[in-house]
Amino acid sequence: MQWYLVATLLTVLTSSQGILTTLSQSNGAYKYDYATVPFLAEVFKLAVSSLLLWKECQKSPLPKMTTDWKTVSLYPIPSIIYLIHNNVQFATLTYVDTSTYQIMGNLKIVTTGILFRLFLGRRLSNLQWMAIVLLAVGTTTSQVKGCGEASCDSVFSAPIQGYMLGVLSACLSALAGIYTEFLMKKNNDSLYWQNMQLYTFGSIFNLARLIVDDFRGGFENGPWWQRIFNGYTVTTWLVVLNLGSTGLLVSWLMKHADNIVKVYSTSMAMLLTMILSIFLFTFKPTLQLFLGIIICMMSLHMYFAPPNVLLDMPLTVKSDEERLIEVSVDRRPHS
Amino acid sequence: MQWYLVATLLTVLTSSQGILTTLSQSNGAYKYDYATVPFLAEVFKLAVSSLLLWKECQKSPLPKMTTDWKTVSLYPIPSIIYLIHNNVQFATLTYVDTSTYQIMGNLKIVTTGILFRLFLGRRLSNLQWMAIVLLAVGTTTSQVKGCGEASCDSVFSAPIQGYMLGVLSACLSALAGIYTEFLMKKNNDSLYWQNMQLYTFGSIFNLARLIVDDFRGGFENGPWWQRIFNGYTVTTWLVVLNLGSTGLLVSWLMKHADNIVKVYSTSMAMLLTMILSIFLFTFKPTLQLFLGIIICMMSLHMYFAPPNVLLDMPLTVKSDEERLIEVSVDRRPHS
Repeated sequence: MQWYLVATLLTVLTSSQGILTTLSQSNGAYKYDYATVPFLAEVFKLAVSSLLLWKECQKSPLPKMTTDWKTVSLYPIPSIIYLIHNNVQFATLTYVDTSTYQIMGNLKIVTTGILFRLFLGRRLSNLQWMAIVLLAVGTTTSQVKGCGEASCDSVFSAPIQGYMLGVLSACLSALAGIYTEFLMKKNNDSLYWQNMQLYTFGSIFNLARLIVDDFRGGFENGPWWQRIFNGYTVTTWLVVLNLGSTGLLVSWLMKHADNIVKVYSTSMAMLLTMILSIFLFTFKPTLQLFLGIIICMMSLHMYFAPPNVLLDMPLTVKSDEERLIEVSVDRRPHS
Repeated sequence: MQWYLVATLLTVLTSSQGILTTLSQSNGAYKYDYATVPFLAEVFKLAVSSLLLWKECQKSPLPKMTTDWKTVSLYPIPSIIYLIHNNVQFATLTYVDTSTYQIMGNLKIVTTGILFRLFLGRRLSNLQWMAIVLLAVGTTTSQVKGCGEASCDSVFSAPIQGYMLGVLSACLSALAGIYTEFLMKKNNDSLYWQNMQLYTFGSIFNLARLIVDDFRGGFENGPWWQRIFNGYTVTTWLVVLNLGSTGLLVSWLMKHADNIVKVYSTSMAMLLTMILSIFLFTFKPTLQLFLGIIICMMSLHMYFAPPNVLLDMPLTVKSDEERLIEVSVDRRPHS
């Protein structure tokens, strides 16, 4: 399968995720416990990966599976990074409002590029660096608060701690992605075996969260296994299936493409969600959305187009000497 | 002289023009007749060019000067295009508000690129086209109306005639520039001789406007030669000298560089004016200004940087086959 087809599918599903999550609410509130969604998605991914690994094991040659503890012990690390990230995110939101947090979230695109270079040692051309910065600028542009929007706090008015935590949050988020890519490419184990390890730890960490929530809430709604499907509708199940599917696609991309491809997919998905929201919800199209889309499309082309397409005819301002050769008509002595 | 030094000087002077014009007002209104400023600037440019041509004539070899009517008769055309442009601009403003008109003004960057290709036959690489579009997007982004600004009309809400006239206005404005470049490069006449012709017609057209204003106003303030310096202060004179100087620099760029260089200079000047306004006036810095500056800087680098700088290390996503060669550790048979 070609990576760009998977990336396109990821864009569509990530975009649907936003739409489905909104549709799963009743009167703007969740009737179900949202924390159950990532847990069930992890279980879904684990089940799918197990099934695919089992099918792979029926065939010859057998899939490669590294089972020594030293390797397996690396697989809970992404879950641990996400756990830290969630706490930093919570801390950040005590200093900045959600829309400033959303704007700062675009920093993740740039930090992913930096960690991609630093930790995976992958080199990018100047033009590709510019494309990455433009992608972050483009997604930010589309989110600039328009004239007439309710809240009017400036993104420049938060305390310094808020920005520092925002940067830390962007670094942690990027680190989780980069670490997963490192893990998936570290050896040529079967993708499904690698997935099984990732999702087993993912399920455990998400389950732990449900249990912690139970204790924090004093078992008001009963233990997690009694309340897990409370308020679930068909749409909620679609949210779970969709989240699980995007997770599987991301894993595939980490193995066969890279984090930058994933970042492009999810950024494009954000823009696609905004466009779909114009038609599905009461989202008003803005000039900044239009500008953001152009910037991101340019960035996409700059990053992925082959150099010979971009530079079919290199030409900058010519020097005076060259130019004079071209100019040769209408000479006349001064009369 | 290097073109980029002239372009930088043009940026600084164009930016000063906005600041000086604001400073020349008293309580937000002009105490002088603004129509006298371009007329005096044309006269200033004519005087400077005549002086420089006279000095050039003292030296050997004599400067080249084409004086046949066929060539001279091309020089009023830029003035005529500007005259038509001013009327189209006036008509456009009956359909759209000034801020929408300002936003649409950025289209001029793209139309200049198109006419540059069509009429001057100059080829641009894909990347340079993208840079031009990004420059227009960047200047537009910096002008996006922020949260809390007084007027809140959407740029998408004007009647269709407004947009069509806006596009026509952008085309005419670009055409005047492209035509001037064609004129300046048509032969290798002395720049000062070409300037003298341009500015003679420029002075005549601007004088005609003053006379028309006199008739329209019923000579209320007397004929133009009596009221011309009414309300002039030192700052007003600086506005005139500055406008004249930018005109001379633009002429030089049309002869020795091109319209795209001019477009970059004036776009950067717009951003510089906004930055200076933060310090000089009560202009509040916005996120969109910050984003616009990043986009325009990227565009500048994309357009002018040599290809080898941009593509020091071309690299896109590798195919699966190549990748598999890199992955070779930790293989173990399934136990």
